[in-house]
Amino acid sequence: MSEMLIDQRNLAFELYEVLDAEGLTQRPRFADHNRETFDAAIGTARTIAEKLFAPHNRKSDENEPKYVDGAAELIPEVKPAVDAFLEAGFLNATRTFEQGGMQMPNLLSQACFAHFQSANAATSSYPMLTMGAANLIENFGTEEQKERFLQPMIEGRFFGTMALTEPHAGSSLSDIRTKAEPAADGSYRLKGNKIFISGGDHPLSENIVHMVLAKLPDAPPGVKGISLFIVPKFLVNDDGSLGERNDVVLAGLFHKMGWRGTTSTALNFGDKDNCVGYLVGKPHQGLACMFQMMNEARIGVGMGAVMLGYAGYLYSLNYARERPQGRLPDGKDPTAPQVSIIEHTDVKRMLLAQKSYVEGAFDLGLYAARLFDDTETLETEAERKTALELLDLLTPIVKAWPSDYCLKANELAIQILGGHGYTREYPVEQYYRDNRLNPIHEGTNGIQSLDLLARKVVMNNGSALKQLSALIQATCKQAAAHAELNELREPLEKLLAHLGKVTVALLGDLGQGKVNEAVANSALYLKAFGHMVIGWRWLQQAVHAQKGLSKGVEADVAFYQGKLQAARYFLLWEVPSCHHDLNVLENRDATCLDMQDEWF
Amino acid sequence: MSEMLIDQRNLAFELYEVLDAEGLTQRPRFADHNRETFDAAIGTARTIAEKLFAPHNRKSDENEPKYVDGAAELIPEVKPAVDAFLEAGFLNATRTFEQGGMQMPNLLSQACFAHFQSANAATSSYPMLTMGAANLIENFGTEEQKERFLQPMIEGRFFGTMALTEPHAGSSLSDIRTKAEPAADGSYRLKGNKIFISGGDHPLSENIVHMVLAKLPDAPPGVKGISLFIVPKFLVNDDGSLGERNDVVLAGLFHKMGWRGTTSTALNFGDKDNCVGYLVGKPHQGLACMFQMMNEARIGVGMGAVMLGYAGYLYSLNYARERPQGRLPDGKDPTAPQVSIIEHTDVKRMLLAQKSYVEGAFDLGLYAARLFDDTETLETEAERKTALELLDLLTPIVKAWPSDYCLKANELAIQILGGHGYTREYPVEQYYRDNRLNPIHEGTNGIQSLDLLARKVVMNNGSALKQLSALIQATCKQAAAHAELNELREPLEKLLAHLGKVTVALLGDLGQGKVNEAVANSALYLKAFGHMVIGWRWLQQAVHAQKGLSKGVEADVAFYQGKLQAARYFLLWEVPSCHHDLNVLENRDATCLDMQDEWF
Repeated sequence: MSEMLIDQRNLAFELYEVLDAEGLTQRPRFADHNRETFDAAIGTARTIAEKLFAPHNRKSDENEPKYVDGAAELIPEVKPAVDAFLEAGFLNATRTFEQGGMQMPNLLSQACFAHFQSANAATSSYPMLTMGAANLIENFGTEEQKERFLQPMIEGRFFGTMALTEPHAGSSLSDIRTKAEPAADGSYRLKGNKIFISGGDHPLSENIVHMVLAKLPDAPPGVKGISLFIVPKFLVNDDGSLGERNDVVLAGLFHKMGWRGTTSTALNFGDKDNCVGYLVGKPHQGLACMFQMMNEARIGVGMGAVMLGYAGYLYSLNYARERPQGRLPDGKDPTAPQVSIIEHTDVKRMLLAQKSYVEGAFDLGLYAARLFDDTETLETEAERKTALELLDLLTPIVKAWPSDYCLKANELAIQILGGHGYTREYPVEQYYRDNRLNPIHEGTNGIQSLDLLARKVVMNNGSALKQLSALIQATCKQAAAHAELNELREPLEKLLAHLGKVTVALLGDLGQGKVNEAVANSALYLKAFGHMVIGWRWLQQAVHAQKGLSKGVEADVAFYQGKLQAARYFLLWEVPSCHHDLNVLENRDATCLDMQDEWF
Repeated sequence: MSEMLIDQRNLAFELYEVLDAEGLTQRPRFADHNRETFDAAIGTARTIAEKLFAPHNRKSDENEPKYVDGAAELIPEVKPAVDAFLEAGFLNATRTFEQGGMQMPNLLSQACFAHFQSANAATSSYPMLTMGAANLIENFGTEEQKERFLQPMIEGRFFGTMALTEPHAGSSLSDIRTKAEPAADGSYRLKGNKIFISGGDHPLSENIVHMVLAKLPDAPPGVKGISLFIVPKFLVNDDGSLGERNDVVLAGLFHKMGWRGTTSTALNFGDKDNCVGYLVGKPHQGLACMFQMMNEARIGVGMGAVMLGYAGYLYSLNYARERPQGRLPDGKDPTAPQVSIIEHTDVKRMLLAQKSYVEGAFDLGLYAARLFDDTETLETEAERKTALELLDLLTPIVKAWPSDYCLKANELAIQILGGHGYTREYPVEQYYRDNRLNPIHEGTNGIQSLDLLARKVVMNNGSALKQLSALIQATCKQAAAHAELNELREPLEKLLAHLGKVTVALLGDLGQGKVNEAVANSALYLKAFGHMVIGWRWLQQAVHAQKGLSKGVEADVAFYQGKLQAARYFLLWEVPSCHHDLNVLENRDATCLDMQDEWF
């Protein structure tokens, strides 16, 4: 079963061959760790995910949260699962020993958390949202706020949410209308409505701490007038005990296509004009605070998409091995036994595509997590800043690419199971429904494409893209040492060169103020850029597979051959498809830009 | 509301400008018809679809059929809808006046039926399956079988099913195990289990006529040993009255991701050794009979996929017009009013992509329906045979392409609605779930790709492909008369040439007996071939749009501009992407073929 969550050989390959997790233990912060402590944490995550998360994944899909007397009810299996997660310390894996954490690298924390995301996307959301909210208070809250709200969150007694979206303001946060009026005691009174708030109500914790975006009376218009507030479900007394119910009300639940076990709520703040909130950070700086947490949140979403894709891949792989059907095209004898469908080339194609998507994106997600460690634990500030720049650049890819292509993987998993895959008797259809959320939340993929092209590529005179190009070239250089990899390296080099050329052209247009024209086809740029990044990660994996093969360990040969073949699939079948996208960009094709409402 | 099912201007464009439906009335069979009778039929279909099919589409998704005391129960809204459909004569639209039909062209029958498929895929399945079963009896049954079973089906008193799949035999029908033993009275006794039988039980009709594939005791192995049987739920007495319950039992219902309103059943035949069946056609010729009906069934599936895509497109288009959000990239003033999201280029892209998929595939589906008319009503046998050859060639495209790309359209419709699109409060997520079935049933798209490359392209020395190429060239020639269309024509000509070259190479391999190698990457061939066909249909539409524009009717200008822009999108953004697929085929890339089970 653990192999159905994540292939453990592949996880070890990522951590100890590709990403050098052990190298992190040289850094003072992680000096108490070693491969044994890492593996022990992963083993615990695996056990809890298997025993307490996976078993109710279908049940919570079929029994979505209910609105009863103003509160959300969940199936009873969710709380023991989350409690075990908390007890094992995964909520605070990266916090210091002093804070009661495990002082683990983010890389390992993500690797552990991936097991929960694969086993049960919905249940794992509750702690994930809490981590996000806690990190906001940790980074921007006052000491008093930390004591009153963060400490109980670390202890797992309070959970958290992120309350951004309003009925008329989703992608365009500058248009939110929730108001926050200062009160005499230094706190604020909030009034407004939020929708799509995940985990906005549930019976899993004593209290829920909503991190709410709202506008102060003197707010300038637009995104520069948004402030961040703590709004607890129950007020907290000075001694830490729970006070009265705050004026935040569960107005209703949304009923989703998938990811049903996570409550998606409509919350009303201040219906009785008495919703108490506390300003976090400076006035009007709320969105900046949120954005500083975006990298982490978006790695989380991207990894969530990966893990649903991964679960479907492993399930369909197992099915393809066990399901006999038909004979090979040249097998004319109908009395010969049927072959397993994994013998059919088109099924191999669908498995290889899935493998290339999910293992490529898994590698990228963990790479980004390690980069996050670099931003915090590299020795000099300059190094940390360089790492942050790269992470900023990669974040839209880490979020968007898996949410597009691991959804596609889930579509292929259903196809492999055929009619069975379309029934709710098998898990793959749920993965597909669950994963459809990921291209939408935490910034739609359209928003990610604008973020990539108009912000990340441009920033600091394009220095992040230069850094990435140098890293890709370095990997190509490593690959050039292996003649077997020539065929795989060349498509990546070609794409890198083409994308570079197109980038210069588009930035030239931006420089000339042709903003609408330059970003018109940003979706294609996101796709080509994402394929370049995943192609790079596959070439890097192929280099390590070659190294591994050269050690001559018999038991590992098939594993490394599989890596090389998946790399081959991605670099020969997928990467070259992007030249067409880049051609469209290069031609400044205006087909979409020119389209008129009344022509539809 | 009718505009939400099918854009009526577009339907008129297809019927009366592109496909010359009026020309069909020159043929003796359709001589009593004219544009008025066609439009009246469409108007009736639209009204019934809107009033009786659309309103319970969501309800039947949320209240799937229940297994109660050995029978399937449906929500009460289904029967009145189906009854109105029957009463209006749509079940027999193409049958002769003598048979009680409307003697309509298949083109018009499909155009009418499309409204029901768009309004409610699940409810429309029951009559569709009945039409398929009735056509089998009509074409291959004895006079006595026609009187006993077909006549009540035509009258709408009996419904039908197609019972092919067994638990261990889906794509590989040669492995079915259901047995049929001859009985003393000339009938047969069947024994076996069938699964995924749509409409296998329901309370909509007095009787259900299952068309069952089974093997006679002396059956040769493989597909040449499969026979076709009528197995009624209730036996039918000589006077036409219902006799005793036959030994066919509803063993259970499957619970699907979508298309939930249609019962998907497991049926047990002969548990009590007394399941009576009647041989249809000759012994061991059952699969041949089925295959002769495939063109019609697969057009039906393809059109079903189109109509779900179409419904999602129109819904998301309307939403994009009404939903204000954000400002254009160059609009920096946050106090300016928000624009409708249809103003955002990336939303236009998602709408144009949908429009190009659904209107391209809609055109192809209707084109195929008209071709079906040609196979029956062209004057000479030679002409009819030529039409049938082309229809045979196009059938895998008509089935597979819409089921892939109109599903993609549904994915885009959800994305346009964002978080709302992911909730069950809006219809687009259901369209997406419903449409996911179409790449699976009636032959998976993998099977279609093998059918296309290894059977249809090869047959009769490639004469069908030659015919298609000539038609594409003729359209290009028409387009060449309009300088505005040069940019659109050239990508199609290039793809046609490239596909021709690759086809010759692959057929060469097949000729040398390299069967496994030649068909290894058939999925890419199907995609490129499908894009060529849809690109051709778009160029044909563009030619008619140019013609229409030249008439100078002010009210039509925007419509034709939209056609030209969608054609432009498909031919410039989509068609050229296939050269990469063809390159992979041309290189005989063996990445998938070489992949080994143990490497995964």
